[in-house]
Amino acid sequence: MTPRSFPHSGLIPQPNDKENLLNYHFDKPGTAPGTLKIEANASPTDIVLIDYNEANASRLSLETPEACSPYLNSESVSWVDVVGLGNEEILQRLGQVFQLHPLILEGVVNVPQRPKVEYYDDQLVIIALMVMPKPDEDGFWSEQVSFVLGKNYLLTVQEELLRDCFEPVRTRIRTNTGRVRKTGADYLAYALLDAVIDEFFPVLEDYGERIEDLEDEVILNPTPHTLEKIYQVRRELLALRRAIWPQRSAINSLIRDGSSLISADVQIYLRDCYDHTIQVLDMVETYRELASSLMDVYLSSVGHKMNEIMKVLTIISTIFIPLTFIAGVYGMNFKYMPELDWTWSYFVCWVVMMVISVVLFFFFWRRGWFKDFSSMRND
Amino acid sequence: MTPRSFPHSGLIPQPNDKENLLNYHFDKPGTAPGTLKIEANASPTDIVLIDYNEANASRLSLETPEACSPYLNSESVSWVDVVGLGNEEILQRLGQVFQLHPLILEGVVNVPQRPKVEYYDDQLVIIALMVMPKPDEDGFWSEQVSFVLGKNYLLTVQEELLRDCFEPVRTRIRTNTGRVRKTGADYLAYALLDAVIDEFFPVLEDYGERIEDLEDEVILNPTPHTLEKIYQVRRELLALRRAIWPQRSAINSLIRDGSSLISADVQIYLRDCYDHTIQVLDMVETYRELASSLMDVYLSSVGHKMNEIMKVLTIISTIFIPLTFIAGVYGMNFKYMPELDWTWSYFVCWVVMMVISVVLFFFFWRRGWFKDFSSMRND
Amino acid sequence: MTPRSFPHSGLIPQPNDKENLLNYHFDKPGTAPGTLKIEANASPTDIVLIDYNEANASRLSLETPEACSPYLNSESVSWVDVVGLGNEEILQRLGQVFQLHPLILEGVVNVPQRPKVEYYDDQLVIIALMVMPKPDEDGFWSEQVSFVLGKNYLLTVQEELLRDCFEPVRTRIRTNTGRVRKTGADYLAYALLDAVIDEFFPVLEDYGERIEDLEDEVILNPTPHTLEKIYQVRRELLALRRAIWPQRSAINSLIRDGSSLISADVQIYLRDCYDHTIQVLDMVETYRELASSLMDVYLSSVGHKMNEIMKVLTIISTIFIPLTFIAGVYGMNFKYMPELDWTWSYFVCWVVMMVISVVLFFFFWRRGWFKDFSSMRND
Amino acid sequence: MTPRSFPHSGLIPQPNDKENLLNYHFDKPGTAPGTLKIEANASPTDIVLIDYNEANASRLSLETPEACSPYLNSESVSWVDVVGLGNEEILQRLGQVFQLHPLILEGVVNVPQRPKVEYYDDQLVIIALMVMPKPDEDGFWSEQVSFVLGKNYLLTVQEELLRDCFEPVRTRIRTNTGRVRKTGADYLAYALLDAVIDEFFPVLEDYGERIEDLEDEVILNPTPHTLEKIYQVRRELLALRRAIWPQRSAINSLIRDGSSLISADVQIYLRDCYDHTIQVLDMVETYRELASSLMDVYLSSVGHKMNEIMKVLTIISTIFIPLTFIAGVYGMNFKYMPELDWTWSYFVCWVVMMVISVVLFFFFWRRGWFKDFSSMRND
Amino acid sequence: MTPRSFPHSGLIPQPNDKENLLNYHFDKPGTAPGTLKIEANASPTDIVLIDYNEANASRLSLETPEACSPYLNSESVSWVDVVGLGNEEILQRLGQVFQLHPLILEGVVNVPQRPKVEYYDDQLVIIALMVMPKPDEDGFWSEQVSFVLGKNYLLTVQEELLRDCFEPVRTRIRTNTGRVRKTGADYLAYALLDAVIDEFFPVLEDYGERIEDLEDEVILNPTPHTLEKIYQVRRELLALRRAIWPQRSAINSLIRDGSSLISADVQIYLRDCYDHTIQVLDMVETYRELASSLMDVYLSSVGHKMNEIMKVLTIISTIFIPLTFIAGVYGMNFKYMPELDWTWSYFVCWVVMMVISVVLFFFFWRRGWFKDFSSMRND
Repeated sequence: MTPRSFPHSGLIPQPNDKENLLNYHFDKPGTAPGTLKIEANASPTDIVLIDYNEANASRLSLETPEACSPYLNSESVSWVDVVGLGNEEILQRLGQVFQLHPLILEGVVNVPQRPKVEYYDDQLVIIALMVMPKPDEDGFWSEQVSFVLGKNYLLTVQEELLRDCFEPVRTRIRTNTGRVRKTGADYLAYALLDAVIDEFFPVLEDYGERIEDLEDEVILNPTPHTLEKIYQVRRELLALRRAIWPQRSAINSLIRDGSSLISADVQIYLRDCYDHTIQVLDMVETYRELASSLMDVYLSSVGHKMNEIMKVLTIISTIFIPLTFIAGVYGMNFKYMPELDWTWSYFVCWVVMMVISVVLFFFFWRRGWFKDFSSMRND
Repeated sequence: MTPRSFPHSGLIPQPNDKENLLNYHFDKPGTAPGTLKIEANASPTDIVLIDYNEANASRLSLETPEACSPYLNSESVSWVDVVGLGNEEILQRLGQVFQLHPLILEGVVNVPQRPKVEYYDDQLVIIALMVMPKPDEDGFWSEQVSFVLGKNYLLTVQEELLRDCFEPVRTRIRTNTGRVRKTGADYLAYALLDAVIDEFFPVLEDYGERIEDLEDEVILNPTPHTLEKIYQVRRELLALRRAIWPQRSAINSLIRDGSSLISADVQIYLRDCYDHTIQVLDMVETYRELASSLMDVYLSSVGHKMNEIMKVLTIISTIFIPLTFIAGVYGMNFKYMPELDWTWSYFVCWVVMMVISVVLFFFFWRRGWFKDFSSMRND
Repeated sequence: MTPRSFPHSGLIPQPNDKENLLNYHFDKPGTAPGTLKIEANASPTDIVLIDYNEANASRLSLETPEACSPYLNSESVSWVDVVGLGNEEILQRLGQVFQLHPLILEGVVNVPQRPKVEYYDDQLVIIALMVMPKPDEDGFWSEQVSFVLGKNYLLTVQEELLRDCFEPVRTRIRTNTGRVRKTGADYLAYALLDAVIDEFFPVLEDYGERIEDLEDEVILNPTPHTLEKIYQVRRELLALRRAIWPQRSAINSLIRDGSSLISADVQIYLRDCYDHTIQVLDMVETYRELASSLMDVYLSSVGHKMNEIMKVLTIISTIFIPLTFIAGVYGMNFKYMPELDWTWSYFVCWVVMMVISVVLFFFFWRRGWFKDFSSMRND
Repeated sequence: MTPRSFPHSGLIPQPNDKENLLNYHFDKPGTAPGTLKIEANASPTDIVLIDYNEANASRLSLETPEACSPYLNSESVSWVDVVGLGNEEILQRLGQVFQLHPLILEGVVNVPQRPKVEYYDDQLVIIALMVMPKPDEDGFWSEQVSFVLGKNYLLTVQEELLRDCFEPVRTRIRTNTGRVRKTGADYLAYALLDAVIDEFFPVLEDYGERIEDLEDEVILNPTPHTLEKIYQVRRELLALRRAIWPQRSAINSLIRDGSSLISADVQIYLRDCYDHTIQVLDMVETYRELASSLMDVYLSSVGHKMNEIMKVLTIISTIFIPLTFIAGVYGMNFKYMPELDWTWSYFVCWVVMMVISVVLFFFFWRRGWFKDFSSMRND
Repeated sequence: MTPRSFPHSGLIPQPNDKENLLNYHFDKPGTAPGTLKIEANASPTDIVLIDYNEANASRLSLETPEACSPYLNSESVSWVDVVGLGNEEILQRLGQVFQLHPLILEGVVNVPQRPKVEYYDDQLVIIALMVMPKPDEDGFWSEQVSFVLGKNYLLTVQEELLRDCFEPVRTRIRTNTGRVRKTGADYLAYALLDAVIDEFFPVLEDYGERIEDLEDEVILNPTPHTLEKIYQVRRELLALRRAIWPQRSAINSLIRDGSSLISADVQIYLRDCYDHTIQVLDMVETYRELASSLMDVYLSSVGHKMNEIMKVLTIISTIFIPLTFIAGVYGMNFKYMPELDWTWSYFVCWVVMMVISVVLFFFFWRRGWFKDFSSMRND
């Protein structure tokens, strides 16, 4: 399965780009709610269980979803990490093991969903969207990460292992660094969610740099290519905003409404995580505003360039057209043209032409038409 | 009766297009509230009853509205599906059978109304708008679907059978698939409403594709036709937004305010349905923003094309005008023009002209006027 | 008294248009609150009383305001309909008869006020604005209608009888059609208010048609006149929005805050009326957005026309300028110009000119400059 | 002290205009809160006391602030009217007499502050901004008026007597007109505040007229001067909006939160005053929107003018350039040019030229290039 | 450590400007919460303690954070002022002395954070951002100032001593001026926060002046440089808005939610401080709107300049092109051209040319093309 990517291949994405970041998954009209849709090229489904308390931590690769069952009710924290949405049967059985509402299972499998938080009696479901910069070109990929938080367990479902943003947390569990081993599943959920949000920052940094490049390009050398790039950046920032905005609402709802599954202590950490989403949103909005005013600058810049071109044309034409007329007059073949026979008339003719040129030059100079040229040359 | 369609016949819709998606039905000023207005070309009114419980399901085509009465108070769920608004008498009698408030009946019959939810003592009225892509051209049709939910019954009224988006639900009832037969009339209302909302997605997909086509057109070959198309897309998205926005508010009000007619279980499903309207709205807004910035790109693109044209004119004029002037000078017929008699003067004249051309070329090249041309040729 | 009209006399309204829809009445600074301002050309004040209950209905033309008094405390519903604001004494006495707060009387007489609802102990005051299309030209007139609702009476004050939008209600009372005779003064107030709101729809329909005309004009033949018309439509829609917006707030406040003077039954009808104001507002906003994007289309369209013109100039100039130069060269009078004496040189000269033309034509054709022309010709 | 004015001296205000309406007063960083800043050119401080009840009213010019003390606790209403902020010592003593919180005194003296309402235990402080049209030119002046309302007294502090908008109220007190003598200090505060708000209307009327003038100018004869004027109007409306917006919030807070110092009776009047601020705000917003769309119209108008100019150039050039080429061809001096020797060739040459002209004319006519000219000439 | 500055070095900031005001600090994805990141070039950490009550005030430079401990629980107010974030160990120990939550310490050290208020059980944390104008060029620097308010102590942490905006407060403590010595740590926190906010005003004044300069430049002499400057101002105002907006929310939350650590008395002062942030925000928004409409003015101004240029070209070309054509005609070498032999034909030819010129001049004059030139010359 290829990831949903946001390509920036120099041109506007073609209609046959199936991988479109702008649209979430939607059911074919008439589908019964709760129907799972497995994509043909989805990754096979792997299940890894990490079980830990302050004293011990173990990591198991499970063959069947049912193998989780004994761990779920134990006192230790059990993190069931599922990667790949390719096996409908396993996913269905997973749903039964965790007693997931059919709508939850649908939301977890039919990716990508709009990020949200759902409260059930003894479960808390968080659908989040992770982004990562494309390795070799501009643009980003996105991937859904779902969290199902229960009393002593956390189920995470990821589309595929494009980028393993959970690894630092796994390391912290293994090496017992920080607070993660000393706290419950809620802190684990926070730590993973925070890792997902933090992935936005490197993507945003890329956009900051692309906008700065475009600023130079717009002023110094605007081409239609520049315009495409600005439009592309605006389009991608729109996609980023659509990814982070519902995430912000979801985390805000978590903080505001609380849940018995999240301790007061972890609430404080969630507030910090919320601050990060606000910061992401803030940066996205700032970049969007900059990109939008770059479009204005582009338009003005193009208008100014036209003025430059017109001035060149006007100066040259306006000076030579009258001169050419004079030359034309004395090229006429009338029999009786007294000037033609005078000795100095050719010389006088040149003088008159010179005077006309100088007068016109002075006219343009007084209007300041030459000032801009010299200022342009400096750039 | 022809459906209200949103035509996209290559040109802006003409004023004689009576079928205008932008406007809801409104009474002629002075009409008494509760007056039904039957359009001349409305479809004849058909009534179909589907009565089911977990064990049995039957489907009857009814001759008179009164034939529903025995079913309404039974324990089984009765779905009365009315199609066609052409028969005022039947509709009036239907209103009496279901004891509808005169304003409800007016809202159901005088289509299209603004989507809304109305709470009455033992009835819940939902006015929804369904859209469907036109089969052969761009644009969409819309049709009102009204729901009256009672204790054990659901009345749905559809304008006509343009597209039977209820068929999958009927099949689920017949084949007892999913939860529909195991639950009450409220779940049925949800399932049908969800089917109505899901119909928006294929329409939106069309717009996504049209915008992508326009992106290419705007950059590569902007014509006034492109402009018309962008304007048309904006206009139609405005119509879509007007259709989905009140629908969102209505479903939100259903979730927030609740109703004794909707069970807690179905509330969960309604939240999912609400998420879908949010998603539709989100896509509409995104497409509107893209269409709006396409207009900017169009304008900039036109400005840039003009620069190109002006450059061609300026380069050619600026190089040849001085040369033509020189040729004109030596075409003059003055008696005393020493240069004319020199042996090499014609040759020198050519050399001077060459030098002038080269200098001017160099001037344009240093200003980067040729760069753009080559970059253009690649596109 | 001439009505406040919104003229559309082909040009932007002149500063000496005293009748300005955009501004509500305001007191000269320093005026004591409660001062009545009678305009010189106001219509004389007529008072008509309609008294009805389910059994009987009578209609009286009253000479003095005091003649109402006996009816106000009777059980039957009394509708005192005052038209014309020309007689200060009668209006003052009317205020005493109905025991109006000085600020109410000021609001009723010093028209036009901003629409609003005011709650007093035993009276409810509604200030509404009625619009009507001008009979012979584009634009609309507006007029204030004030309602003072008491226990068993309703006082309505209208500026003058430009358009009697209350007539259908009067007919319903006379002929005892619908619910009006069976209900109280609150239903009457609703029925009249609904009639006022319904008057907005024909006005809005006009604007829909004007915008559709402008759409064609902008694409096919944009002139500065088109621009004026778009600006005029935007201006008038702004005025319409200012009229309907506070009306919406007022009715919303009526529904939300309730009042002991309005029965629960009439509340349901008011919700319907509120839906109509929302619908009006929705249409106004949609038209404003369309008008605003028409301005963009106009600008782009003008830009494109310029490109067309420039292309014609550039093609002609660029082809002939080099040819004219060649002709100029061989028009020079140098003694020693070998080509002049060759037999075929004139013929060769033509061939060279032809080749240059063809090359340039090919250059323009490859750049697609001729495509647009043919596409233009079709329009 | 010269008033803060908003100049409109034909050009954009220069940086050395010290009198800038856009900025409120702010302390030099590091100033201790409560520090008074007396401007060098401030008017000397005058204190006038008006003491009245229903029976009597007296007016005294006081020498010292302490002279107020006996009046403040009497039953009659005492209005202490202070004009001029030039004497720090008197102002400090005034603060002690009225027991003002240091921050109140600072707000009253360090003008202009952002309009606001502040609630203290037994005092209510209202900071308002009064505007007045400049006598001889476009633009307006603004001045701060502060109200301190106590149980039986009102302290008003005005910067200087630019325009005495309180005079009509003083007259009403002297002549015992209206309700003012029959009510308490709260009604007096309302009456004065209302007088301050009412001063906005004549200023706004000026802007209405200036915008109407600009509408004509933009369509008929747009010059860069027009642009400056539009920008200037937008700038000044921005300043007006900044003055009225916080005033609206302040009065709204007065109505919503109430205060024991304001009787229910005066609350009704305050609602009326609030309506006036809404009306002012509404007009400001409408004018801002008009001014903003005028900018668009200007841009389009300039674009259209350019098209006109280009058409003239293109028609003339396109017709004569080919003709001149033909003339050039037969001006060549080749020995062997058969046409030159034919008898009718000169005549034929003229005919060919005519035909070319007619064809080109027809081409331009078919494209409708001449239509616009005639339509232009009518304007 | 160089400060985060907002450069305005004549050109758009280059991508290698590492010091970017737009972005707050964010963790590298995968960092454990609470990890401190010490920048290599951070200033060394200095700790100064000021301890005071109404009677005494002492100032100590502390070697170790632990030296604060005895003062924190004393009755006198202890202000621990930390400058410089270069020493991780000292900062960690400081966190232990003050018992800071790991997230607080992270927020204080990993600068710059988004301004905010955090409530902990017995501590109140305020993260603020201070700005200061750059000494020698346009633009501003920003620096984070963190406040941790406890019962009797205040901890402030500043990045480095770019500008010591706390000095006036220190002086007030030393000299016992104003209320600071008479009140608790909450008043001290207010006084310092107010000092931070007040630093915004001189920065804003700079922008007011730069915008006024740009207004002149845009109308009188728009160059692409002007455009860059406008864009730069918009960019920097965006950064200022991002700095002040969360500060406003933070102080608003302090006032709305209160805290046991802030006395009612200081609440009044905080309201004043809140007014200042509103004022800053108001100015920023006003300047942003002005800068944004300046972009429009620029575009229109450029369009108008083009018209001017085109007029010059068109007038000259249109007059001389027909004349040159006539001259060309009589330069033809046809054998039989009767006019050539007439005696007066040369003279007649000149007369015809004159007439054509005059007619064309009149045509341009009637269209008002010369009016603009003279109006331009005045500027």
